[in-house]
This record gives sequence, structure tokens and C-alpha cells, in this order.
Amino acid sequence: MALPARVEICECWARDGIQGEGQFIPTDVKIQMIQQMVNLGFHRMEATSFSHPKLVKQFADSVDVLKGLPRRDDLTYIAIVPNQKALERLLDCCQAGYGVQEITAIISASEDHLLANLERTMAEAKPPLAKIVRQARAEGLKVIGCIGTSFGCPLSGEVPLAQVEELTDWYLEQGADYIMLGDTTGEANPLQVRRVYQRMLDKFPNVEFISHFHDTRGMGLANTLAALEQGLVYHDGSLGGIGGQPSTNRPKYHYGLSGNTCTEDILVMLDELGVATGIDTVGAIELSQRIEAVCGRELLGHTTRSGPVRHRSRQALDTTALKTGREVPPSLYLWQPDAAGSGQNHTQVAEKIIRDALDHNWPMPVDFPLEVKDLEIRAWPEQRAVLLTRFTVLEPGDTARLEALCQKSDGEVIFQGPVTVSNIA
Amino acid sequence: MALPARVEICECWARDGIQGEGQFIPTDVKIQMIQQMVNLGFHRMEATSFSHPKLVKQFADSVDVLKGLPRRDDLTYIAIVPNQKALERLLDCCQAGYGVQEITAIISASEDHLLANLERTMAEAKPPLAKIVRQARAEGLKVIGCIGTSFGCPLSGEVPLAQVEELTDWYLEQGADYIMLGDTTGEANPLQVRRVYQRMLDKFPNVEFISHFHDTRGMGLANTLAALEQGLVYHDGSLGGIGGQPSTNRPKYHYGLSGNTCTEDILVMLDELGVATGIDTVGAIELSQRIEAVCGRELLGHTTRSGPVRHRSRQALDTTALKTGREVPPSLYLWQPDAAGSGQNHTQVAEKIIRDALDHNWPMPVDFPLEVKDLEIRAWPEQRAVLLTRFTVLEPGDTARLEALCQKSDGEVIFQGPVTVSNIA
Repeated sequence: MALPARVEICECWARDGIQGEGQFIPTDVKIQMIQQMVNLGFHRMEATSFSHPKLVKQFADSVDVLKGLPRRDDLTYIAIVPNQKALERLLDCCQAGYGVQEITAIISASEDHLLANLERTMAEAKPPLAKIVRQARAEGLKVIGCIGTSFGCPLSGEVPLAQVEELTDWYLEQGADYIMLGDTTGEANPLQVRRVYQRMLDKFPNVEFISHFHDTRGMGLANTLAALEQGLVYHDGSLGGIGGQPSTNRPKYHYGLSGNTCTEDILVMLDELGVATGIDTVGAIELSQRIEAVCGRELLGHTTRSGPVRHRSRQALDTTALKTGREVPPSLYLWQPDAAGSGQNHTQVAEKIIRDALDHNWPMPVDFPLEVKDLEIRAWPEQRAVLLTRFTVLEPGDTARLEALCQKSDGEVIFQGPVTVSNIA
Repeated sequence: MALPARVEICECWARDGIQGEGQFIPTDVKIQMIQQMVNLGFHRMEATSFSHPKLVKQFADSVDVLKGLPRRDDLTYIAIVPNQKALERLLDCCQAGYGVQEITAIISASEDHLLANLERTMAEAKPPLAKIVRQARAEGLKVIGCIGTSFGCPLSGEVPLAQVEELTDWYLEQGADYIMLGDTTGEANPLQVRRVYQRMLDKFPNVEFISHFHDTRGMGLANTLAALEQGLVYHDGSLGGIGGQPSTNRPKYHYGLSGNTCTEDILVMLDELGVATGIDTVGAIELSQRIEAVCGRELLGHTTRSGPVRHRSRQALDTTALKTGREVPPSLYLWQPDAAGSGQNHTQVAEKIIRDALDHNWPMPVDFPLEVKDLEIRAWPEQRAVLLTRFTVLEPGDTARLEALCQKSDGEVIFQGPVTVSNIA
């Protein structure tokens, strides 16, 4: 099936992501991170939770976070509203001018999970939640009706799809705008996702579903792709693949609390699949690296370390769009002393290698404007050698400065130094 | 497309997995790990590499590993043979009665990658490799023709599929028995895998392809599934998702050296998809945990921490098949003092909870033989409470002993102690 041309990724870091963090993340850091998400092109973001501050200390600052967020018409902030008190507190924020656009209401398809999480039976959980959904809508908020453990439960095992359908019906009766099938503890598999969404889209053709997978068993990307193949446009992720479950003192009812499907990994996959997101993927990888510093540990993203898949750009190099400190991927050159060009001096050969290496990354015109004035040339290999040349961006601009580094395969430096490239775009 | 009913998973831990480990893994540990793989039902295993012992120290003991392996007609051991000298050493082992059944020959589809890895051009690499393939076959070994960087290259970016087709043709001319399309540095995406294998199977309908993905960008499972959906039966993985690339002093030409797709994660996915492997999945998870101890660090598997997806067994409990030390997944019970059964004493209620919890895992007949003699009952909740009950297997047998533990959601222990269950199977 053809994939959607464009999707909406909701970044859950500031809520589902950090709710289990033991350490309190300072309010200004939370705000900065969300500001940077906005700069990167994210339009949908979980901003905070109005859980009881004593139960989830991470969100004791929910009001202050909302106060500090950048505001723009095209941004959708989402808050979790677990109970009536939480809704009242959120509505106060909305009236004061620093609210959210959407709330997420949560119930579990598995009654065991509901009991474990909220100590409520299905019959006990529904009426107060219905009131929240109706009141939020009456106050002009959109509501995401989240059905947790839609694909399986660590306590009850299988969850009947009929239960998910019934809760979808029930949410829609209350007026919910979106239905989120939550794979709360990562039980879903791609064939099941396909089957479930085929059935749900068949039964509820006009409902906007949101895919939300946890990567507990490593199937987060495969499941996101399966949902995408069913035409879903709304997908959730969290930078660094962080998150999953509040840290509580309760006995563990499941293991492997790995978090949401990792956003930067989703973005790299979507880029490769040709699905547009409007988000700067490399910027998201860099933001995730900053988030690792904030959280004080390496998180679970793969592309956080590998970077995106390498492709030669289809467009010519725009030297003003380069980013300071970013690395230009390396290129190989097989140096053979007796090959053509052996009459050239080393600076001329170095320039040829640099031209070649840049052309490996962008289609460069012949004789593009390049200056290699202060290159430091060290020992030149006397025999055939494989040379690896990379660049670090020192300064973008109409004439950009890059630091070139050329090494032999044993690590020996052949030449290094600044080069300048003028814009040809 | 219907998935194959049964697949062959090759476990690459002992070669591709550990080749990058800085620390030498003792020979007897390597042999023990392979012995345990055999016990778990693995039939195909990379056993070692005959790389030059000075270049890859991890395989300095390749001959001794082969000497120590369990031998059975249905086991296929595979060795990497990078050059003529390596082949001669391996053939000596074969003649002495402790050889392998298959070798893997490796070339890269990307000439840049070939230069970076072996300092050879395509024209230089082919003739010696052709000789190895032909000689190995003449000596009765099967040959896997591996084409590295089939899906992309960290140095050249895109790799033309025509190049992969040409190398496949070339391998087949030399007599290769299998063709492995190696996603050496994790560039593949699922749509590409589908496209590539559709094309390859169309062009080479009689060739047995082996899927081999690295999880560098988190798409290992999604790609394995994509290959599976094209009907591939042979798939590679490594316990703990370890491996990837030899540790050398060379300048890095790509980042994120995360390893092979994780075997235990593959097994859990296949179990969920209903594809048979003949391998004990929970045993593989436990073996991967032992491998983490061997490697001295947490590896990259997801299910290593989460365990498999929970399902109630379809078969009745066979108490002789329980494994000592394994945990029986927990079950919930909503205790309400005023509910039916309030006239019973606490031991009677505890027994009811235990029966219920076991029935949550296996379909138990009414009044199955259970003894709860020495249960220690602590404070019984006076008010409604959610109780979580789990078991640890103490001793399997016709009458098995389990340790029961029942806790309130605040962690308080309600009862604990041994129970015995007699076989009903």
C-alpha cells in the first residue's frame, strides 16, 4: 500500500518521555528543549502532565512549563489529564492564556492493567473520564482518547480487539477527536498492527487514529511502519527512545521498561522511506544528544550514534546553510604515486582530493570556487595508499570555512587545515 | 504475502558478534556458549574466523574452538575465510576431523568499502576470492557468497543494485551455494529490502538468499520482517545484538557501530508472527544474559530485559517441563473483603488466589492438585486491595515446587511460601 506522503510526528519527550526519570529536570531546561523542538519543525508536542505533583514529581512544574512555552498558531501542545482536579488546573492555565490545544485522556483496554495502574475497575474508571472528555471539549480543547494496552497486556496477556472497539465507540460518544491505540508495554507485532488497524479503519472509517508504540521488544519501528502502511498520519515518538512508565514503588508487573519508539530513529526511517515530516532530522539527532546530557546517560536511540543514512545531496552545496561544528561525511581516495597527476605538487593533489571529497557529498560544478591557502601538508605517502578525507564546518556563509583532515588508513595525517568554499547555489 | 512457516536462524555471536570485542573471550567460554546454542535448538552457527590472528586477536584460537565443538549430523558450523592462507588452515582442520560445513566468502558491493576494509580494488579482490570459493567447493564445503554493503555504503552512499546483481552472477559462476546480501553498516530500510529482494528473486529464482542486517539505525527487525515477507528462509542474528566491525586503529569511516540484529529479539518477533524456528526463545534470552556476563556489559537486546510477550499457554501445565529459577509471570487479583468468599479463612483465600494466578498462565482444570502447606500469611488487607501474585520455580518434577509471592500494590507482602503442584498433563 502507498505510504502517506506526509505525516505528523508528536514528540512525547516532555511527558511520556521524562515521567519515569528519577531526577527532576529543571523547568527552564524543559522549556528550552521544547523551544528547540519547535525550531526543528515539530508541530505536535506533549508538553506536560497534570498528574498529582506528589505522585509524579517530575510534573510538579506543569503550570510553569506551560507559561514558558513559545506560542504560535501552528503549534499543538498536549497535556495529560488523569482526573477532574487535573482538568480544573489545566483549564485555569487555558483561561490565563497559557494553556494547551489538546488533552490526552487515558484508559486501558485490559482491566488488569487499569487495576494495576489506577486501582480502578473498568466500571469505576469510565464515568469520571467521560466527564473530563466532555468538559474539555466544551471548553474548546481537542481530546485524544488513548486506549492503553490495545495490543496486549503484561498481566492478562491477550486483549480482545472487541474491547478496543467498544472503548473506541465509547470515546467517540463522549466526543473525542482522535483515538490513540496505545502499545503501552510493547506487546504489538507488525502483523497484529496491520490486522488491528485494518479492522479499526474498516469499522471507524472517519476516525483519526494515532499510533503510539513502545519499543520494549525492539519492534517500535516495524510497528510504526505497519501503521504507516495502513495510512495512519499521526505517529508518536520520544527523542532518545526515553520513557515508558512512571517510577513508583509498586511491585513490577512487567520488565523491560524501555520507552517510546525513538523519534530520531523514526525520522531517519521516514526520510529513507520518502515520507515527509517537516522536521530537521539531523537537528533532532543533535537535540537528542543534548537530551542525553540533560538526563546524564546514553539513551536508546540508534541514529543518535550512527547519524542518518548517507546519501549524496541532490542539490548543489549551499554554503550559507552549513552548520558550525557539523561534520561532512568522509570520502576515500586511492592514492597511487605513478597514476595520472603524479607530475603535480602535493598542494595540487590535496586540492584535487578535497574537490573530490566535497563532490562526494554534493554535486559540485567543475572548478568550483575553492581556496586551500594554509593547508599543512605532512609526510606524503610514497606508496599506494587509501586516503580518508573529512571536513568540519568552521563557519558557514557566502564563503564558508571548513577544516579538512586527510588520513592514511593507519591513522597517519597526510594533510589538514582550513579551506574556503564560495557559494555556487 | 504469506510468511514462511519455518525459518533457519544462523547465530553469528561467535564470529560477527565478538570480532570487535576488545577483550579476548577464553576458548572454553566460546565453546560453552556454542554448546548451549546447540542445546537450545540452533542448527546454524558462525563458529569462528580464520582471519590473521595478528589482525583479529579474538580468533587466534580458531583451531581450538573447532576442536572443542559438539558434533552432530544436523549441525552446520560456518567459518569466515578471508584469504588463501586462511583456507589452507581451515582445510587442515577439516582433514583432521574438526572442520566446518560451510565457509563465508566476503566482498563488498561498494568499491570504496572494499578499499577501506581490505585496501583492494574490485579487480584486485575478485581473483583470489574466486580461487577460495572454487577450492572450498572442491573440498566438499558449502560456500556462502556474502556481498557486503548491498544496501548502501557509509563512504559512497547509494550502491547500485546492478553491482549487487553482477556480484551475485559472479559468485554463482564460482559455484557459491548461498548468496548473502549483507547490510554491513545498517543502511537498509524495509521498502528497499522488499524492492531489492523482489528484484533479486525475480532474476535469480533458484538461489537461496540469506538475510543479514545490522541494527545500526534500529531497523534490523523491520528489515528482517521485510526479507521474511519476500519468502526468505535463512536469516542471521547475534545474541545481544553484539558485533559489527573489527576493532582496528583505522580512522572511523562511519559511526554507530551497533551490531547484528539481535537474535533473541528476532526469535520473539518470529514467535509472535507464528513462524517456527525450532529454537527455545526463553532459553536464548537466558543465554544472552549469560553472554552479557561474559562480555562484562549490558548488550543491545530488548527482550533480554523484557522477556517474551505474555500469552496464556494453550497447553495444560506440564510440571516436569518447568525450569528451576524461572519466574512465572505475575497475575492480579482484586481483593474485596465484602465479596463472596469473605467467610473463608486467609489460607483458603490465598489458595484461591494461587489457583487463579496459575490459571492465568495455563488453562488449569477445576480443583487441580495443589498443596499450600507452609504458606506464611502476613497482614491481610482490611480494605479492598489490588494483589499481585507471582511464582518462582524451585523444583520441577511430577510434583513441582514453586515459591509464591503475593504483594499489595504498595509492595507490602501479603503471603509467601512454597506451593506444590502435581502434574495433570
